[in-house]
Amino acid sequence: MDKLAKIDAAIRRYYTETYQVVSQDLIDAILYSVDSGGKRIRPLILLDLLEGFGLSLTDSHYEVAAALEMIHTGSLIHDDLPAMDNDDYRRGRLTNHKKFDEATAILAGDSLFLDPFDLLARADLPAGVIVQLVQLLSSSSGTFGMVGGQMLDMKGEDQHLDLVQLAAIHTNKTGKLLAYPFCAAAIIAEQGEQVRDNLSVAGMLVGHAFQVRDDILDVTASFEELGKTPQKDIRAEKSTYPALLGLEQSYAVLDDSLNQATAIFQKLAKENGFQADKILTIIERLRLHA
Amino acid sequence: MDKLAKIDAAIRRYYTETYQVVSQDLIDAILYSVDSGGKRIRPLILLDLLEGFGLSLTDSHYEVAAALEMIHTGSLIHDDLPAMDNDDYRRGRLTNHKKFDEATAILAGDSLFLDPFDLLARADLPAGVIVQLVQLLSSSSGTFGMVGGQMLDMKGEDQHLDLVQLAAIHTNKTGKLLAYPFCAAAIIAEQGEQVRDNLSVAGMLVGHAFQVRDDILDVTASFEELGKTPQKDIRAEKSTYPALLGLEQSYAVLDDSLNQATAIFQKLAKENGFQADKILTIIERLRLHA
Repeated sequence: MDKLAKIDAAIRRYYTETYQVVSQDLIDAILYSVDSGGKRIRPLILLDLLEGFGLSLTDSHYEVAAALEMIHTGSLIHDDLPAMDNDDYRRGRLTNHKKFDEATAILAGDSLFLDPFDLLARADLPAGVIVQLVQLLSSSSGTFGMVGGQMLDMKGEDQHLDLVQLAAIHTNKTGKLLAYPFCAAAIIAEQGEQVRDNLSVAGMLVGHAFQVRDDILDVTASFEELGKTPQKDIRAEKSTYPALLGLEQSYAVLDDSLNQATAIFQKLAKENGFQADKILTIIERLRLHA
Repeated sequence: MDKLAKIDAAIRRYYTETYQVVSQDLIDAILYSVDSGGKRIRPLILLDLLEGFGLSLTDSHYEVAAALEMIHTGSLIHDDLPAMDNDDYRRGRLTNHKKFDEATAILAGDSLFLDPFDLLARADLPAGVIVQLVQLLSSSSGTFGMVGGQMLDMKGEDQHLDLVQLAAIHTNKTGKLLAYPFCAAAIIAEQGEQVRDNLSVAGMLVGHAFQVRDDILDVTASFEELGKTPQKDIRAEKSTYPALLGLEQSYAVLDDSLNQATAIFQKLAKENGFQADKILTIIERLRLHA
């Protein structure tokens, strides 16, 4: 199995082999969205970084990766709900509440927010490492991370935001959870504070790049390329990087963030013997050409 | 400050003193539901049991209690949503989505599911204890606990259920989270396996009693006594203990569960020096007289 299949297997194992089934309907709805063909960028970054630190990947590493992907998947289900973004399609398939119903989608999302902490706590890792992973995953995703950012985004929808406000939304809504695999890798590899800080900065840069990239793609890509309705942002008159900076400047900001992240990993490779080739490949793939 | 005020203070401290605010709107919505005057039965059981084991209560104990109450509060917000039970009132006040809006209520609930694990991980307790508390809180509340039970409940709404099916709903929907403080107290007090098992059984019994009691009150109490619309179950033709067993037999089942739980604590008091008076008072208060 490749990494992608092993991440999926770790999620599936949690839902089918850990406990006696309570509601098969709930598990079906959860796995429908898990199976929706996401790129698994967050867990793949974690696994590539762990290998960069010279670790051989174990089931536990895949469980940490799975926990992260579960939170992300839960957030997509809730973001698509009628009361939120009201999307009918996600990655080219019906969204969870269209495939099932609204109540099911709410509960499937709730599950995907609550279950990952059990999965983390069960991982065969030192207790001190698990506590740090739990603390960081929770704070990156709750009120002071993803959910807080989603609330800011919603409240800012009808307003013209400036770059500082836009950055506050993105840092929280997507940035912190994208930075998580970078920090989590340093925690699992039991690196010192300096390496952790470097990885944390690299994580925020990649997170930022990701959002700028998403905004650019919304302007330039088709339904087939995107797997969802494009130009929703423009029609909703949403504040985005292309809207605030223009398309050309947005490409420059994306490149700049990726260059800075690249420099951090090149330095880590030189000074700490970190194997940077895989993460650098991931970073290169995030580039877009005007 | 009494215990109730200190539980509230621990929740409030998390939201106002731990991190820089991301969205004040979100925190306001969360604290609106936290402040809705719940009886805090779950956290109070935890604290009374810890004292029963001879521990002096610390901030950390209040943080574990707060984490538990946060999950419970989040579940009430989501249960009240239009797509779920569609309730306008809760504890005599407007429900979260009526006071704010649906999107806000979804996000406030999400926060209250994600944040407690950060709070637990930050508690000044041994890492091994925290990992166990995280594992149990997550598994009691997610797919294999509360959320799974809520899904069963929803799917069973238009069906006539038998007692076994009704018990499966309640064990998961409310039972496991009501049993949590019993198990958590044994974990924090670092008790052996036998005491833990006894407390776990006592927790399930009290959880069962709670649900039977709720069903009875729905038949017998008024809006003022209940703080929400009574007899919703009857009008919805829901399967309940009074509907399946009759009211008299339901009183007997309630008493029997409470008697069994009482016996466990009396035995613990006799054999392990456990101070049972406070938990026995809580158990006595759950009795209803026909």
